[in-house]
Amino acid sequence: MVIVLTDNATEEDVELICEKVKSLGYGVNVSKGIEKTIIGVIGAKDEQKLILAQQLESLHSVEKVIPILKPYKLASREWKKERTQINVNGVVIGGNDVVVMAGPCSVENEEMIMLTARAIKAANGKILRGGAFKPRTSPYSFQGLGEEGLKVLSQAGKETGLPVVTEVLDPRDVELVSQYTDILQIGTRNMTNYPLLTEVGRTKLPVLLKRGLSSTVEEFLLAAEYILSRGNHRVILCERGIRTFEQSTRFTLDLTAVPLIQELSHLPIIVDPSHGTGRWQLVPSMAKAAIAAGADGLIIEVHPEPDKALSDGAQSLNIPMFQTLMEELTKVAEAVGRSL
Amino acid sequence: MVIVLTDNATEEDVELICEKVKSLGYGVNVSKGIEKTIIGVIGAKDEQKLILAQQLESLHSVEKVIPILKPYKLASREWKKERTQINVNGVVIGGNDVVVMAGPCSVENEEMIMLTARAIKAANGKILRGGAFKPRTSPYSFQGLGEEGLKVLSQAGKETGLPVVTEVLDPRDVELVSQYTDILQIGTRNMTNYPLLTEVGRTKLPVLLKRGLSSTVEEFLLAAEYILSRGNHRVILCERGIRTFEQSTRFTLDLTAVPLIQELSHLPIIVDPSHGTGRWQLVPSMAKAAIAAGADGLIIEVHPEPDKALSDGAQSLNIPMFQTLMEELTKVAEAVGRSL
Amino acid sequence: MVIVLTDNATEEDVELICEKVKSLGYGVNVSKGIEKTIIGVIGAKDEQKLILAQQLESLHSVEKVIPILKPYKLASREWKKERTQINVNGVVIGGNDVVVMAGPCSVENEEMIMLTARAIKAANGKILRGGAFKPRTSPYSFQGLGEEGLKVLSQAGKETGLPVVTEVLDPRDVELVSQYTDILQIGTRNMTNYPLLTEVGRTKLPVLLKRGLSSTVEEFLLAAEYILSRGNHRVILCERGIRTFEQSTRFTLDLTAVPLIQELSHLPIIVDPSHGTGRWQLVPSMAKAAIAAGADGLIIEVHPEPDKALSDGAQSLNIPMFQTLMEELTKVAEAVGRSL
Amino acid sequence: MVIVLTDNATEEDVELICEKVKSLGYGVNVSKGIEKTIIGVIGAKDEQKLILAQQLESLHSVEKVIPILKPYKLASREWKKERTQINVNGVVIGGNDVVVMAGPCSVENEEMIMLTARAIKAANGKILRGGAFKPRTSPYSFQGLGEEGLKVLSQAGKETGLPVVTEVLDPRDVELVSQYTDILQIGTRNMTNYPLLTEVGRTKLPVLLKRGLSSTVEEFLLAAEYILSRGNHRVILCERGIRTFEQSTRFTLDLTAVPLIQELSHLPIIVDPSHGTGRWQLVPSMAKAAIAAGADGLIIEVHPEPDKALSDGAQSLNIPMFQTLMEELTKVAEAVGRSL
Repeated sequence: MVIVLTDNATEEDVELICEKVKSLGYGVNVSKGIEKTIIGVIGAKDEQKLILAQQLESLHSVEKVIPILKPYKLASREWKKERTQINVNGVVIGGNDVVVMAGPCSVENEEMIMLTARAIKAANGKILRGGAFKPRTSPYSFQGLGEEGLKVLSQAGKETGLPVVTEVLDPRDVELVSQYTDILQIGTRNMTNYPLLTEVGRTKLPVLLKRGLSSTVEEFLLAAEYILSRGNHRVILCERGIRTFEQSTRFTLDLTAVPLIQELSHLPIIVDPSHGTGRWQLVPSMAKAAIAAGADGLIIEVHPEPDKALSDGAQSLNIPMFQTLMEELTKVAEAVGRSL
Repeated sequence: MVIVLTDNATEEDVELICEKVKSLGYGVNVSKGIEKTIIGVIGAKDEQKLILAQQLESLHSVEKVIPILKPYKLASREWKKERTQINVNGVVIGGNDVVVMAGPCSVENEEMIMLTARAIKAANGKILRGGAFKPRTSPYSFQGLGEEGLKVLSQAGKETGLPVVTEVLDPRDVELVSQYTDILQIGTRNMTNYPLLTEVGRTKLPVLLKRGLSSTVEEFLLAAEYILSRGNHRVILCERGIRTFEQSTRFTLDLTAVPLIQELSHLPIIVDPSHGTGRWQLVPSMAKAAIAAGADGLIIEVHPEPDKALSDGAQSLNIPMFQTLMEELTKVAEAVGRSL
Repeated sequence: MVIVLTDNATEEDVELICEKVKSLGYGVNVSKGIEKTIIGVIGAKDEQKLILAQQLESLHSVEKVIPILKPYKLASREWKKERTQINVNGVVIGGNDVVVMAGPCSVENEEMIMLTARAIKAANGKILRGGAFKPRTSPYSFQGLGEEGLKVLSQAGKETGLPVVTEVLDPRDVELVSQYTDILQIGTRNMTNYPLLTEVGRTKLPVLLKRGLSSTVEEFLLAAEYILSRGNHRVILCERGIRTFEQSTRFTLDLTAVPLIQELSHLPIIVDPSHGTGRWQLVPSMAKAAIAAGADGLIIEVHPEPDKALSDGAQSLNIPMFQTLMEELTKVAEAVGRSL
Repeated sequence: MVIVLTDNATEEDVELICEKVKSLGYGVNVSKGIEKTIIGVIGAKDEQKLILAQQLESLHSVEKVIPILKPYKLASREWKKERTQINVNGVVIGGNDVVVMAGPCSVENEEMIMLTARAIKAANGKILRGGAFKPRTSPYSFQGLGEEGLKVLSQAGKETGLPVVTEVLDPRDVELVSQYTDILQIGTRNMTNYPLLTEVGRTKLPVLLKRGLSSTVEEFLLAAEYILSRGNHRVILCERGIRTFEQSTRFTLDLTAVPLIQELSHLPIIVDPSHGTGRWQLVPSMAKAAIAAGADGLIIEVHPEPDKALSDGAQSLNIPMFQTLMEELTKVAEAVGRSL
């Protein structure tokens, strides 16, 4: 159950309503967004919700009360019917345009990231990706360039006019990374890192949240709820493959999650065919399939020389392949009534 | 390692070659197809293959010898580079056209199957599906109409000019079912039913082989190999969803298997978005995605009144939905250079 | 809902009751066991069951009516509270004794099977296993000796006094295999081969039913129900590992299924640590764990020379290892109040 | 490849060796443990290792050089043959005694934790568990008492003489939690939270590392390696169930991981049958099975009133059940040559 406050509600109003809810025996979660303040009522049983809604709607500065059956509230379609559009420096994610984000797995040096950024821009890519902090399965693998990587990524974004997205691993780094990026990425290994979700939920930057490699769709939306419930309503979901018994691909890309999540949630959802398949040969087919399934965007690994990449070379497209793919994607987007 | 015989090779030639191979210490598998006779050499190690190939190629009536590294031989791209096209009464599967097969889960009665068949034909569907023998998880569920169902299905096919496909469960029924159908279907629960695979491998009918719900791509191609190695080279593969931890959909449709199988095998591959998702709401998106991924066809459950279906109503489209979907699919097929 | 008939119920009584049930709009399944005839009522909704039970209990020759909520009826604890004991030529499965079945994966020749049988007998094994019809993933792998294998297996059983268990793959072979074996085994790949389940359900031999490698516990009990509902009430369940993302073992042995099934069903349940792990090094630990978890027995692969086995050598114990293990198992059985 | 330094090696020696290794073109990882300093050589190919080992062994202050083929080094049996024993205030984990850790999921208040601690002590439990920071799937669920919870847990440990173990979620809390606990727990959701692993790797406290719910055994050992490579060599592994298709239990307890990990690693491994099954009815059977499989300990949820627990009540034993179980476990431990 969610209480939406009127636009002119004051801090005092918020406190009064919270006190009222607590006095009735329920918990509260206050989410102060840029536009709206929302109070989540926690612990109400289904049969109590009708009476409770009436009690609360009569309060001063309550705009409306929305009963929600799902365990996630602010992420649900019940709470918000229209689809959320997220504007990142003029690039709109969740609208009619399919947004392609691209770039190398890791930022390796200034030259390669500039070269890649220009090629992505030229091929109609809209957002530049690149990792500076890398979560690696082995402590002995290349862990990224850190702040140095953030700087050159940010520089490449500015020179090409492309907004950038990069991963943050540690709640202590959120402030630092926020200075250099336009979108904060939470990787698959951190989808259940609740302190990190809470920390990015307190920023004003859009968050690209990747599905945990063994998380259900419900758990995925609850992870988004951690961010939303801290007041950051700009969450972009990303399907990137789940772990199954099948080992001939790196993961099993669960494209059905795209229409399913669009049914359950108002948040935009994009697809990562590079991690989802683990082999560049399979990326173009699955990129096209993702758009046909209704995805709001793609995030694709592109590297000028995949053979020499410090990480994930096997799943990276080179630049000519990316250019060809972008032309093919344009046709598929049009076939399903969208544009690239 | 596979020995391809010349077109004029006689029974005697076949025997002579087999004897030669056995005398060298290897096993043989003879696959007499309509066009070619092929002898598989079993048990040769990689390092022996070159010398062995030379010995065998010098034999009378040997056209060529192909070393194959995969555990499946006749299903592999190494054995046959060009993609296999299967002609079913004029409908070609594996060519440029994407072939849509549709119909109810179970044949329930004459009226419903006739109604559905006409609607499928009108909407540009090419093949009529319908179950007469149903493999049900519970012994107490509706098990299909049996031969009575085959008769009305066959009749509906004839009246509309649509070839039909129906499942066979029992090796003892292969002959019976073959009298009524144009394509024999092996269901997901029987992908490792080797006596059944062997039996359909001895017929001259095309076989639609569904992937086992927990089989790897390699096991899937080895199941096809059971059929191919008995001399029936007309196998159509079908991805229909695998079992994973995710339970918000009935299965997890593994669309990446489509481009992967096209890389590994020359056999056509189609997709079943109805079983793959388990909910009709998700079928259109995944049907479009399957075509964008490169599938050679689709098999879709359509029922005039899904609410009253004796099985699988929740995943069946009604007729108007199917018509709308076919128009959308046509556009996606064109976007990837194919037609419907 | 299950109707249990009195012991003196005649064929006519059965028919009368079936007619009555059908006239009320429900389906029937008649299961004529050796001791009891049972009629399953199919399609009754929960809210109708109370009234229906009263109507049926008043009928002549109805002993009692048992409402059952689970989808499986005769396999459920609701239907039969006391645990089922199955007597195979004096060896009781499901009683206080833990029963160890052992032998080679495949029957390879008379000498090896005799040697193994004597060693198993000497080490206190109670039942001899061995495969004559082998379901192999590749059509080119050794498929078993067929009837020849059955003969030598049966002979080894007779000479040592051990009952034998062997797999049947094809409904057409049930009669043949029944002539040579004391227990019919249904392998994991055939758990959803319903014609085969139906066929063994019509015999009078105990059936060892292995869990499908991706079947849920509910589906496993429904597969048992196929056999039980045909009148054969002597089903022994076997947990043998399920397919998961973890590939460092051949399968993931789901030992929790043992106490869970004992809660849900009255049927005995044994464990196969050989297939469940795929490596002989892990077999002893998991055999002990299975008994500690409450298993009613074990089925273990033993081969005189695992290095030379025609199938599954990597997971076979040699004879001295088996002897040592049997001594260890005896202690664990005693620790949980049972004997070996 | 791992270089073990002599006990009297100085900081300067370490630097010299590192420089030498880098000059040969490889990376280094220095792990300064309490007893030994170890330098990992990163990037050496198998064929280079022999020559490299000779070059390095001749260096001053190098005790020995150990070539290691596994991706994890310090966690491997190749690096350390004898099994690691971890002494926590006199309780030894990894020795002949099986160590039972028990307590409530969450610390709820002082009274309940004191009551539970005394009961655990009386029943021969050796370590007290209890959560103060709780990682919950929903942001609206009870998140634990925080520092207040740590205080009462620590107090209960002191009064009963039981060492305590509690979870830490956030790298920023490691210092705080370390003040109150004897063992730091990393939960399943944080197994791939590398900044957190790194932070606990810098403490001197033993770490209880739970397997990620979808991590392979190799990834599990690599997560341990993150801790070990920071110089903290006291890692206790914990199998707690993996995510599979089977939903009749909360997770699938992978007991085979116990003997497998003991083969691959020298680290002690314990089992959590409470989370592994999710239902208290199944806990006793799986606790016994874990000990029979060779586990070095157990961690069990015990609550004085499971019906009223703020989290995980369904999988908690009450106190009498725990007492009964401890008696049963003693017998199983003895049957496999250990004591409780």
